[in-house]
Amino acid sequence: MQAVEHIYLDYAATTPLSETARRAMMPWMEEAFGNPSSPYRAGNRAAMALADAREVLGRTLNASPEEIFFTSGGTEANNWALIAGFDAFSAKGRHIITSKAEHESVLNTCRYLEKVRGAEVTYLDVDEYGFVHPESLVAAIQPGTILISIMAANNEVGTVQDLAALGAVAREHDIPFHTDAVQAYGKMPLDMNSLPIDMMSVSAHKVYGPKGVGMLYIRNGIRLTAFVHGGAQQRGRRAGTENVAGIVGFAAAAKEAVDDMVTCTERERMLRDYLIERMEREVPGALLNGDRKRRLPGNVHFSFDCIDGESMVIAMDMRGFCVSAGSACSSGSVEPSHVLLAMGRSFAHARGALRITIGEKTEKEAVDAALENIKEIVAQSRAVLHDM
Amino acid sequence: MQAVEHIYLDYAATTPLSETARRAMMPWMEEAFGNPSSPYRAGNRAAMALADAREVLGRTLNASPEEIFFTSGGTEANNWALIAGFDAFSAKGRHIITSKAEHESVLNTCRYLEKVRGAEVTYLDVDEYGFVHPESLVAAIQPGTILISIMAANNEVGTVQDLAALGAVAREHDIPFHTDAVQAYGKMPLDMNSLPIDMMSVSAHKVYGPKGVGMLYIRNGIRLTAFVHGGAQQRGRRAGTENVAGIVGFAAAAKEAVDDMVTCTERERMLRDYLIERMEREVPGALLNGDRKRRLPGNVHFSFDCIDGESMVIAMDMRGFCVSAGSACSSGSVEPSHVLLAMGRSFAHARGALRITIGEKTEKEAVDAALENIKEIVAQSRAVLHDM
Repeated sequence: MQAVEHIYLDYAATTPLSETARRAMMPWMEEAFGNPSSPYRAGNRAAMALADAREVLGRTLNASPEEIFFTSGGTEANNWALIAGFDAFSAKGRHIITSKAEHESVLNTCRYLEKVRGAEVTYLDVDEYGFVHPESLVAAIQPGTILISIMAANNEVGTVQDLAALGAVAREHDIPFHTDAVQAYGKMPLDMNSLPIDMMSVSAHKVYGPKGVGMLYIRNGIRLTAFVHGGAQQRGRRAGTENVAGIVGFAAAAKEAVDDMVTCTERERMLRDYLIERMEREVPGALLNGDRKRRLPGNVHFSFDCIDGESMVIAMDMRGFCVSAGSACSSGSVEPSHVLLAMGRSFAHARGALRITIGEKTEKEAVDAALENIKEIVAQSRAVLHDM
Repeated sequence: MQAVEHIYLDYAATTPLSETARRAMMPWMEEAFGNPSSPYRAGNRAAMALADAREVLGRTLNASPEEIFFTSGGTEANNWALIAGFDAFSAKGRHIITSKAEHESVLNTCRYLEKVRGAEVTYLDVDEYGFVHPESLVAAIQPGTILISIMAANNEVGTVQDLAALGAVAREHDIPFHTDAVQAYGKMPLDMNSLPIDMMSVSAHKVYGPKGVGMLYIRNGIRLTAFVHGGAQQRGRRAGTENVAGIVGFAAAAKEAVDDMVTCTERERMLRDYLIERMEREVPGALLNGDRKRRLPGNVHFSFDCIDGESMVIAMDMRGFCVSAGSACSSGSVEPSHVLLAMGRSFAHARGALRITIGEKTEKEAVDAALENIKEIVAQSRAVLHDM
């Protein structure tokens, strides 16, 4: 196989581990291996590292350290909020509200709760840009609604929800509000002091931290029970020996991402808008998905009428580019995107999607090169279709 | 604070990351950061690393790669087997059998299932050595028994159960059998070809792998559903982007531990028996807990009548030794050990426990030094008691 210099344009799927995070992790993979639950000094040292990480992560959200709980990633955090939320609040009812455009880790957890646990779930429609309208949330609330979960920003099309408005509806009705902020965290301000959010899921590997770590923010006073049961770790709310190195790396990466957020996202936004503009002008049949303004800074997402997303990704891979047909988590499936279908796109457009996500290391040259290759691939596909 | 050279004698709490594992992990924390679910080459490379790890880990158990599922650790694996086991099998009944000496991650998950999910759980007695008797398992089986979970080896006293006999009872009654092998794995042969085990939990950081990774072995044909729901990772049975670096490190460490098992455990067993013999001869009032022969190779566990375990651990810490009062997971609690109480020890003895666990790097000098210090501490405690 020929060595190909890959150009990475899939930062929404995962990100490289930052140098700062890797360096922060190393001592915890070497001599500092104590179990944070052990009462001697080597254990205390690890416990203090966890406390520091909790403080650093809390500060990125304007939250208290005791509102930060470590998980094995965003997926576990979403499972925790929904399943333990159902356990904890189901004395009041069995109704949960979410949206049709959520990540699989919310949707499939809701389906589990419906099928196995007797929950009733309303999946709210989204509009053609992927927005959940606060009025439709109001209309869906029932006396037995115990939990609302609406993502902060969509992993496919990058649409950023109006969390303030949606959370305000939840608060008015005194219903706990959870948001999957896996894509939003580090990309937009998430101030727990001002936002009416009760629980929030975050993943480390989307913000230049390690894979296998995440957190669930749980507002003080929200009586969420445990999802993973066992030892007394994390004040009895998440059992299991903590991934000390991973958590330390997560905190280091997250601090850096949030500290540099304004500069980084401004740059990403400019590259994004530049690429969107050129795609619309230069690639025939390219149809932008999601909102033009209220979208994640690095997200570019198009449908094509002549080629499906999976073929586009493979063609781009052959040319040295890492891009996505939607979300990495559902790759391999030939199903059309549930997000695009929910937005009212046709079946063909929902299968023909290409997601390019820009990150802190993306250069303008890479974006230009990607565009030229997309143009060629689309032109070839159109020629083939024309010949048929 | 004075720099103290610590002597680590708490290998059951956690182990240092092996050099082999750390080296195996590094590329996955550097340039090889692709998401294993991404369809391009950088993703495929990560997916292949996971496949390799699955194969290596399967081989350590004489199991097929497709029977290996990665988790965030032993605790999640135990939660998965029990909670999803209850979900999957509860059409047939609601009764689960476990023992009183299990790890908190089994006991507290069972309590959750009783309290929230309507399960009925029988907690089997253990004898004075910590053994579960197959006859008592037979006697506890009901028509509605859907799951049996008995640990392979106890984390506190090191008692090794007769898995072949217990599993055979389960199989005779056609009931899925789960075992928590977090302490046993890498310390004794666990051959899935010959043992009647259907599910088995393992943790990486107990076998010189990283914290935050583990696995659940699920025998082909056992229709266990998912515990963590979401994307299609791990054939839809455990969602969430895999901790690639951690999994690669786990496999490397586990391979090494199992390859070297015979030599390492023989050495540990000799040091163990040497320490037990000297403790019994030289420390007045020292009472061995657990079985003399059928115990984990590195486990030494004593009760004292004159000093509680927590004070002993702190006194030993001041003298430069890392030892434990029981399990790390329940440390900080002043509760007596539930394992020792189940074994019929008095309340005083159940609070006065000291666990020393020997690992691959433990030298005879360290064991000798620990013993001398224990003798002094016990002598001082006895003197104080005598003065009172």
